[in-house]
Amino acid sequence: MTDPSRLTATEASRAIAAGTLSPAALMEACLDRAAAREGVTRAFAWLDAPAARRAAAAARPGLLHGIPFGVKDVLDTADLPTGYGSPIWAGHRPRGDAAAVAAARAAGGALMGKTVTTEFATRNPGATTNPHNAAHTPGGSSSGSAAAVADFMVPFAFGTQTAGSIVRPAAYCGVVGYKPSFGTLHRGGMKVCSESLDTIGIMARSVADCALAMGAMTGRDLGDPDAKPGRAPRLGLTVGHDASSATPETLALLDRAAEAARRAGAEVVPFALPPALLRAAELHGHMMNMETRQALAWEYAHCRPQLSAVLLDRLDWSGTQPPAMLDEARAAAAAARAAFAAATEGLDAILTPSAPGEAPEGLSYTGDATFNLLWTLLWGPNVTVPVATGPKGLPMGVQVAGRMGDDRQVLAVARWVQAAMG
Amino acid sequence: MTDPSRLTATEASRAIAAGTLSPAALMEACLDRAAAREGVTRAFAWLDAPAARRAAAAARPGLLHGIPFGVKDVLDTADLPTGYGSPIWAGHRPRGDAAAVAAARAAGGALMGKTVTTEFATRNPGATTNPHNAAHTPGGSSSGSAAAVADFMVPFAFGTQTAGSIVRPAAYCGVVGYKPSFGTLHRGGMKVCSESLDTIGIMARSVADCALAMGAMTGRDLGDPDAKPGRAPRLGLTVGHDASSATPETLALLDRAAEAARRAGAEVVPFALPPALLRAAELHGHMMNMETRQALAWEYAHCRPQLSAVLLDRLDWSGTQPPAMLDEARAAAAAARAAFAAATEGLDAILTPSAPGEAPEGLSYTGDATFNLLWTLLWGPNVTVPVATGPKGLPMGVQVAGRMGDDRQVLAVARWVQAAMG
Repeated sequence: MTDPSRLTATEASRAIAAGTLSPAALMEACLDRAAAREGVTRAFAWLDAPAARRAAAAARPGLLHGIPFGVKDVLDTADLPTGYGSPIWAGHRPRGDAAAVAAARAAGGALMGKTVTTEFATRNPGATTNPHNAAHTPGGSSSGSAAAVADFMVPFAFGTQTAGSIVRPAAYCGVVGYKPSFGTLHRGGMKVCSESLDTIGIMARSVADCALAMGAMTGRDLGDPDAKPGRAPRLGLTVGHDASSATPETLALLDRAAEAARRAGAEVVPFALPPALLRAAELHGHMMNMETRQALAWEYAHCRPQLSAVLLDRLDWSGTQPPAMLDEARAAAAAARAAFAAATEGLDAILTPSAPGEAPEGLSYTGDATFNLLWTLLWGPNVTVPVATGPKGLPMGVQVAGRMGDDRQVLAVARWVQAAMG
Repeated sequence: MTDPSRLTATEASRAIAAGTLSPAALMEACLDRAAAREGVTRAFAWLDAPAARRAAAAARPGLLHGIPFGVKDVLDTADLPTGYGSPIWAGHRPRGDAAAVAAARAAGGALMGKTVTTEFATRNPGATTNPHNAAHTPGGSSSGSAAAVADFMVPFAFGTQTAGSIVRPAAYCGVVGYKPSFGTLHRGGMKVCSESLDTIGIMARSVADCALAMGAMTGRDLGDPDAKPGRAPRLGLTVGHDASSATPETLALLDRAAEAARRAGAEVVPFALPPALLRAAELHGHMMNMETRQALAWEYAHCRPQLSAVLLDRLDWSGTQPPAMLDEARAAAAAARAAFAAATEGLDAILTPSAPGEAPEGLSYTGDATFNLLWTLLWGPNVTVPVATGPKGLPMGVQVAGRMGDDRQVLAVARWVQAAMG
């Protein structure tokens, strides 16, 4: 019999429904896997086996009945500490669950543990390593969620994205990352930094798992991404606004993805980024950092020595920017959303790189979000699917992005592209 | 010498800068006033005189140096309990300040205490009474902030608004209420219910105080609303989408406001609400309640007996609504924002009622937000100014609303209208 920790959420949920697997046995298999691997991968900020077993025993009936899940440690949990990746919040014990965590439990999910986040989901990394090669970063900021899912410790986990914090680590670790349309999951009980950008999403080992988990939590019908589509998609192809950051292997992979999609019947047309998108991408950093400066006003005033140098530097810089720059960035993003909706008429989705290349070596830098930030600020769904191995033997993905609200379609296209690439 | 508790924030801040008033003396005067009145008004959820004195002593230099402020108890405070108006959160002690509270302290403000909110800033009221007549509601959900400011216990206080939770209680209590453009103050550390609507704002005894406080916290130049404007404004006049809810005295007051503005030189033209605004107003309840249902997922799952019947009823109803209704409400609001921007070209602001009439009798019902919810969902600034006394001897206001980002102009117009009405 398959080790239950190897099952996707969809497979495990079928087995639990059929009575051939129990929530307790599934959790035990995940805990065993974590016990075997956690010394190297260090995906969890908090993992307490008895608490995880209790969660499995208490799991409610529902679409996620008995499915273990990990929670990025920027989301509050009532029964586990929540530290936001910062010593300032070490040992913090929220009274309640974040809204998204409560939604997962209400659908039957069993909280396994808290996964490592970079400091406040910004740049300064935790100790997590890439499960494919511990000398490389797993990416960030959802480092632990990507690594735990990739390392078969848990079938799905929550991530959050402000620039590329779900899609990039998912690509680096070889899993599926799904940032849904902005506002899909409520951010209550999340340590929100950028109110205009932060989006809660899912990392899993299949596109279908992402649809299952998000659908179960929101009551939305996200379809079955594994179902044969009625027709091949029409895709817009772009390297993005920062083509010079793509490694040769990334450019080659995008070509291969386009070619495979064409062979499978898709129409793939070049997508020229409208100027409004370029301007919005330029101002993404202003929006993200100036809002983060507001968010961390208490920490900045009272706990400055406990902020990392890289974060403090950004906060200091943000404090020198006039508020009009924030207004301009928000207006540019709104204009870009309108321009994107118009420019993608007739297209089902955009096909674009997930990251500059494979996961960088070393743990001090989680990599560059330049291929993600534009799609995040456009508020539509972005999905990365693992489709290749790079020159260093690390996973690589391609990204499918779409219009706000087109989640079902973007998930279906992402799965279709993945299948087309074999 | 004037009792310092009677000073506006602007006046007090001049006196402190001039050295004729100390932060300690000002706080003491506010505490004296609260001690004299709190037994009847019950504005504070938490008021601890030694802590308030410490805050005054520790006040930093800045535009709000030594100015006491109240904080609606849906905003976290590091040194005072934060209960969100719910027994579920009674005695909760946040580790940090909400971003907005930290911004007020960074500008020199001195936290005096936590003001009463309805349950999670929804409907179920606290014990606060209207300072003008304790048999009447102060309005809600920012009940304590409106009452404390009106009763001279504190010069300004934070409120939050999802439908009419700043403007309505401010009007009922005879103070100025200012809901700024959506996203002006970061909501980190707020118990957010509706992510698409909740906005943090200010209540004070003058328009200038609102500009002072918001400007000091955000670094924005909101101008001097007391300065003589270069020209009289061009105003759009409307009773709103729900004219039948206006009492005769409210209709008469709006006529008087329009007449006074005309006499003072304004051009006042009828403003017909575009159909997109009517549709958005119809769906406001779906957006607010469905998002609140998501926000309170943990409380709903684990603490149901501690939710009020009126809130539970709304949460149950929200659970029966398909997610597509939320999408439709959000789309309708976005369409209304675009339509409003187009329809108000050439207008400086909208002149409209603040509330259906005077504050209703009794404390069990905080009144109707029907004259506020549209302007809230349009995301622009709304300001109520006290301009009259109604047939029952209670205060009445008129409301000035504007386009997103036009805060400076809307504050100036509100002050101009108030002055025109004598």
